[in-house]
Amino acid sequence: MRDPVVSDTDAVLFANEAFYRALADRDLAAMESIWAGEGPVLCVHPGWPALLGRSAVMTSWRRLFAAGGALPTMGQAEAFLFGDCAAVVCYEEIGGEFLVATNLFRRQGRHWKMVHHHAGPSAAAPADEEESPPPRVN
Amino acid sequence: MRDPVVSDTDAVLFANEAFYRALADRDLAAMESIWAGEGPVLCVHPGWPALLGRSAVMTSWRRLFAAGGALPTMGQAEAFLFGDCAAVVCYEEIGGEFLVATNLFRRQGRHWKMVHHHAGPSAAAPADEEESPPPRVN
Repeated sequence: MRDPVVSDTDAVLFANEAFYRALADRDLAAMESIWAGEGPVLCVHPGWPALLGRSAVMTSWRRLFAAGGALPTMGQAEAFLFGDCAAVVCYEEIGGEFLVATNLFRRQGRHWKMVHHHAGPSAAAPADEEESPPPRVN
Repeated sequence: MRDPVVSDTDAVLFANEAFYRALADRDLAAMESIWAGEGPVLCVHPGWPALLGRSAVMTSWRRLFAAGGALPTMGQAEAFLFGDCAAVVCYEEIGGEFLVATNLFRRQGRHWKMVHHHAGPSAAAPADEEESPPPRVN
């Protein structure tokens, strides 16, 4: 029943875009729908400890939306397929700072549902991506 | 042919520990074996742009091992299974600083092979995990 004109890669990138649109719109209902309703979900916001479970993750979005601070825009997404899982790596820009994010999706029926979001600071802006990273781990 | 006495969760946590042991030992041969030999692999070192592809990822380990700086120890790993993929979230400690890492594994035959590592700073030490995170996204 999968739409043959939409590749898995496109479907995953579409789900990733829907996540950032829900973020920009502070749309909690969309967020509830984007994240997997079954199985484990987890989330690492920049600088936060890991949040485990749908309840903790949804509470974090509710609090972030209510807090009214800046939320990121997204660019340069690339999707990587691992069977019924897919990882998207993309950049987030927020207040002139760049973050790099890993977003993990899982195929559930016809849809790709988010199961993990991990964002953290990137020393380099996306345009610097071609340069060699510094040889240190932190 | 799977060993019935080892659960998938245990096998994934074992693969995650092998990764940090290879890191501590600066063992490039072990690292080559731990990461998937087929399909996409990617890596986000703290503050680095995303590295895409096995060659770029292995080069980064070679450079990190050669640079001789401190490498992290790992604790509080939790594994989350998504069919033939699994995510491990754990803490890394390096020079008194705490990082939080997402490590993604994929089942390949009897083994769980690493396909993604993403580590970044955590404002909170693992012991603070029970406290509410601050309501901001960066």
